[in-house]
Amino acid sequence: MEPESKDESQPSDQWPHKAWSLLSAVRRHSPLIQCITNFVSMDLMANTLLSAGASPAMLHTLEEIPDFTPQVHALCLNVGTLSADWLPAMKAAAEFASKSCKPWVLDPVAAGASVFRLRACLELVQLKPTVIRGNGSEIMALSKASVGPTKGVDSSHESTDAMEAAKALAQGSGAIVAVSGAIDIVTDGKRVVEAHNGVAMMQKITATGCSVTALIAAFVAVDQSNALEATALALSIFGVAGELGMSLARGPASLRMHLIDSLYGLDEATLISRVKITSFD
Amino acid sequence: MEPESKDESQPSDQWPHKAWSLLSAVRRHSPLIQCITNFVSMDLMANTLLSAGASPAMLHTLEEIPDFTPQVHALCLNVGTLSADWLPAMKAAAEFASKSCKPWVLDPVAAGASVFRLRACLELVQLKPTVIRGNGSEIMALSKASVGPTKGVDSSHESTDAMEAAKALAQGSGAIVAVSGAIDIVTDGKRVVEAHNGVAMMQKITATGCSVTALIAAFVAVDQSNALEATALALSIFGVAGELGMSLARGPASLRMHLIDSLYGLDEATLISRVKITSFD
Amino acid sequence: MEPESKDESQPSDQWPHKAWSLLSAVRRHSPLIQCITNFVSMDLMANTLLSAGASPAMLHTLEEIPDFTPQVHALCLNVGTLSADWLPAMKAAAEFASKSCKPWVLDPVAAGASVFRLRACLELVQLKPTVIRGNGSEIMALSKASVGPTKGVDSSHESTDAMEAAKALAQGSGAIVAVSGAIDIVTDGKRVVEAHNGVAMMQKITATGCSVTALIAAFVAVDQSNALEATALALSIFGVAGELGMSLARGPASLRMHLIDSLYGLDEATLISRVKITSFD
Repeated sequence: MEPESKDESQPSDQWPHKAWSLLSAVRRHSPLIQCITNFVSMDLMANTLLSAGASPAMLHTLEEIPDFTPQVHALCLNVGTLSADWLPAMKAAAEFASKSCKPWVLDPVAAGASVFRLRACLELVQLKPTVIRGNGSEIMALSKASVGPTKGVDSSHESTDAMEAAKALAQGSGAIVAVSGAIDIVTDGKRVVEAHNGVAMMQKITATGCSVTALIAAFVAVDQSNALEATALALSIFGVAGELGMSLARGPASLRMHLIDSLYGLDEATLISRVKITSFD
Repeated sequence: MEPESKDESQPSDQWPHKAWSLLSAVRRHSPLIQCITNFVSMDLMANTLLSAGASPAMLHTLEEIPDFTPQVHALCLNVGTLSADWLPAMKAAAEFASKSCKPWVLDPVAAGASVFRLRACLELVQLKPTVIRGNGSEIMALSKASVGPTKGVDSSHESTDAMEAAKALAQGSGAIVAVSGAIDIVTDGKRVVEAHNGVAMMQKITATGCSVTALIAAFVAVDQSNALEATALALSIFGVAGELGMSLARGPASLRMHLIDSLYGLDEATLISRVKITSFD
Repeated sequence: MEPESKDESQPSDQWPHKAWSLLSAVRRHSPLIQCITNFVSMDLMANTLLSAGASPAMLHTLEEIPDFTPQVHALCLNVGTLSADWLPAMKAAAEFASKSCKPWVLDPVAAGASVFRLRACLELVQLKPTVIRGNGSEIMALSKASVGPTKGVDSSHESTDAMEAAKALAQGSGAIVAVSGAIDIVTDGKRVVEAHNGVAMMQKITATGCSVTALIAAFVAVDQSNALEATALALSIFGVAGELGMSLARGPASLRMHLIDSLYGLDEATLISRVKITSFD
């Protein structure tokens, strides 16, 4: 109702239809997504991409980047189990993607866990990711190291801090920045979009965050000119799959299974009735 | 009915009984299968071997090959996430297996994805795998690089191309070559056996192809003198488990679970009623 | 009834309540557990820790140890897919943990598979693990290499051999030693505690052994002063989750799912009614 929250360019009821349109495009085009990711996430990430209709390719070797990366439609880099011998391939793939205007997405897992990791993330940010997705503390650590501390209007609220950090990181890096949480936030530094789908138990399954980052890569691959919207929609759709899965689950392991099944089987009516995105311009 | 499709040495109704006999042998002897495989597949591959009654061992380190590989009953090499530091162990293990007449199976995942990968696959083929299993494009890429282009009688049909490539690769390498697809093809370069089991959704689960290659290793381990038949039967049995799983599945993730459960619980009557193999000599 | 099996310090009916108390502590404090583990186990191990209420962190890089290991509450080292380039980080992390009196747990997977692996395990044992958990043959191989052959009173019984080996290893190393089997045995070299929970089919799921080792790390993290009891209780609780899962399972893959769900949902009454631990002092 407030003027500042009104989204003139994108009426709010357009989001669910856009969600279906994008998911259909992923299913139709089956974009090839190269993932250089952590060991823990590889299985769930590949299965998430497959169930959404995309084609995963888990190639991480430096020697293969020049031959293979030109063939992919998007790239997903994740530093979860980073080691010094994997970093050159990540950088080479990111560099290639940036130069050839191919979208690529960065997941700065545990960015603040060590100096080594934070430096690696900063080097990757320099290579112009299309999207950066993390949780609040990851985005705050990366933003602080990248563009300096932000002063939220009310820094006692963590979500406000994360929002300010995300905006600053987006402005400083040129990337779309997504912060996962009870409500997912996506920003280009000015515009803010919130995705309200998902269930809390998804955090009790390892690699759900990593997997939604790969899903973002698949969505941006089929709608590169609207990376902010594609990112918000991927987060929302993964959340919808979680909600549907939750209705069948007994715990985290059955949720994991039902989430993937639900993502695979998602139909238009169900998706449209559940996507909850709000946009603030 | 046609003379050329008649299988004199192996009446067609013998296949289902042979399938049960071989699965029983795997369960009874629990062959130890060393897998040097990609990171994505390790979990499903180990669980596939366990559910079939075999013993998986995921050791990939060069220093351990001389001590450990002599103890195993078969070896499974898979280049899915190959890097330069893993290749020497693969070659050492393959070399040892070849010299000691231990069966070993090669999965040339994405053989044509890069020069690096194709070269590695060609070097491994030189070390005399007992069986090579891939999808059509992998076998075609490997065959072309290994023995040159083939001229199918009707090269406009991809399955015919794959068949000709498989035969050429088998003749050139001395390996049994298996091509996975809607119908699986197995050949020694002359004889061709087709396995007609499985469901399409298995392709929506990452690492099912890798896992059936490991299963082939387990089957060849208990019937080394009939590697062609053991390969066809492993493909068929994995497909039967997929069919049984499919009847309980809601999507790819539940199919994955039910497939493994079904492989574990497979009984004689069910298996015999479902194995569909045709042989062309 | 026999005097030697009477547990004066720990009445047998205290175990179930202690089990609930410790599981509650894990859920409440959510200890951060660093796992440097094999590739096969990472997914199940992380999900086991999450479902128990702990926080997994799969960081294995040497450069990160000085920054990150000081932040964790316990460490889990597993040599399942050991290679020379991973060993320095394992040793650095273990060394840090020992010096700072942080609990750490060693899983000597396939300790006897190669000279390389056995030497690595012996070097890690020198760094004073709080707990060592393996199966009978792993503990026997490690004990023999570490403290020399043991002479069981009745060496024709494997379980007796494992018991003697465990006691000798515990005395020689100062660690609590746990031997998984139909009955799990835990000893500090003198006292012996047996955990009688679990189902045989858990051995048909890859990485269940690895995962219970990580669970032991989480339990010891919240009760460091009673590592022997915490170890026995973690083994028992994981076994209870397996028993509950088994009642819903059709095979190993559904057992894996239901086990994790059951661990997540375990309530006080169910746990207390099922924990079966006997203590011999």
